[in-house]
Amino acid sequence: MSQAGTRNAARDMFEADVASRSLGIELVEAGAGTATARMRVTEAMLNGYQIMHGGYLFLLADTAFGCACNSHGPMTVAAGAEVSFIAAAHLGDELTAVASERTRYGRNGIYDVTVYRDGPGGPVTVAEFRGRSRTVERESEAT
Amino acid sequence: MSQAGTRNAARDMFEADVASRSLGIELVEAGAGTATARMRVTEAMLNGYQIMHGGYLFLLADTAFGCACNSHGPMTVAAGAEVSFIAAAHLGDELTAVASERTRYGRNGIYDVTVYRDGPGGPVTVAEFRGRSRTVERESEAT
Amino acid sequence: MSQAGTRNAARDMFEADVASRSLGIELVEAGAGTATARMRVTEAMLNGYQIMHGGYLFLLADTAFGCACNSHGPMTVAAGAEVSFIAAAHLGDELTAVASERTRYGRNGIYDVTVYRDGPGGPVTVAEFRGRSRTVERESEAT
Amino acid sequence: MSQAGTRNAARDMFEADVASRSLGIELVEAGAGTATARMRVTEAMLNGYQIMHGGYLFLLADTAFGCACNSHGPMTVAAGAEVSFIAAAHLGDELTAVASERTRYGRNGIYDVTVYRDGPGGPVTVAEFRGRSRTVERESEAT
Repeated sequence: MSQAGTRNAARDMFEADVASRSLGIELVEAGAGTATARMRVTEAMLNGYQIMHGGYLFLLADTAFGCACNSHGPMTVAAGAEVSFIAAAHLGDELTAVASERTRYGRNGIYDVTVYRDGPGGPVTVAEFRGRSRTVERESEAT
Repeated sequence: MSQAGTRNAARDMFEADVASRSLGIELVEAGAGTATARMRVTEAMLNGYQIMHGGYLFLLADTAFGCACNSHGPMTVAAGAEVSFIAAAHLGDELTAVASERTRYGRNGIYDVTVYRDGPGGPVTVAEFRGRSRTVERESEAT
Repeated sequence: MSQAGTRNAARDMFEADVASRSLGIELVEAGAGTATARMRVTEAMLNGYQIMHGGYLFLLADTAFGCACNSHGPMTVAAGAEVSFIAAAHLGDELTAVASERTRYGRNGIYDVTVYRDGPGGPVTVAEFRGRSRTVERESEAT
Repeated sequence: MSQAGTRNAARDMFEADVASRSLGIELVEAGAGTATARMRVTEAMLNGYQIMHGGYLFLLADTAFGCACNSHGPMTVAAGAEVSFIAAAHLGDELTAVASERTRYGRNGIYDVTVYRDGPGGPVTVAEFRGRSRTVERESEAT
């Protein structure tokens, strides 16, 4: 698929992704098997410890993963994921999630996503995420 | 800790959890090492395929996990998690996340969370989540 | 499938499993979606810190998982797994791995395995393992 | 730490690792946060389907991970790992595991290991492994 086509498949999916767009997530870059997404931490994302709820951190990574694994064209869904929470994110932090494809085999794929924020001494990693994708014909075949 | 105390530690944390409460999550049950949370899928939670964004599914499980692992009192954070997405959730579905403690060792814990919705033939599992917790003195010691 | 049939499917596979049998692993129990396997830690299993190499701990859990997920009949392989190492195992320890099915969906399954050793105050958990299985027609379709 | 020092910390640990050496594993390379290990599949490693037991595949990856995460000097143990099995390995295959450090934070680290074999058209990925490490003062503090 041409770079332009790739860009469009991921971008089209992102345009229709109400969840990501409602949260102010921006799709910064989308290539073949890659994607970069960005989000700012708002008050509505804070948990009982006044730090960003892990669910929103996961969501940002999952959006970047979804754009990367759908960049090849066919409908591809998340089969699962593993995440390590490395540093807390706070109100106002701008987080960037960078997804890249590690491998594809059959209808499966593995994608790594690093989420970071900018710190005084350079980027600070906030989470490391690894997603497992599955290409399907239609939603009902997702498993 | 008494059952009543347990209930209060998790409930207090949940009361302060703006992220979970903004999404309409209810804490249905909270015991020693256990918690049940419930959420209805809204339009703002749908992704580009018109199914619930995996991030919100994770968030619900993570909230139940957070209540269960903080039920013992000391501040406990998520160190990481693993999730398998089993069935899609749709607009209007009411999802229930049931968290239970599998083991604790040192300052670590492992908690299993099953997310399901009710179907005509009984509960339908939507996701299986396993969280790893870490008890800390204060947030800066999270790692 | 009858309990007797289940027993035989897992037992037949185990009988042919040279890797497990060469290490002295015993299949203690095999039911529908469950299996219990046992192994003693030998010198050949120790790593550079004089504790059991994590690979052998994983292997024991994986054998119990394999028996449990093949108990239903059709050829089923491990698609992946997640393990947490909880306590060290030492020379001479007898380890028991108990596998149970958490869920099955389409051609996938999730199985939990707890590995423990007996301590003076009761069983001590050594590892928690979660395996993801995939039923295939033949090996070449494994993915 | 100098490159030479790094090399020696990992190499010393590997020299003492009876489990890895008994299986014929070779430590091909060891640098700061990296390691490459190699192993040939023997008959004693085959499971009931006549393919390499996943436990041995994990073990090879875990050895490379162990060398990489101990390259910095202080005693470091595996806290856990996640593995995806991508292709079957067969009798006689020579497998190579390449470990690299993704991040370190506090006493924790995350390491990625790719296991591959050589195929007619280039390397074929057999497994993707992600290990979580924990630096400890002594074994009893492992958790």
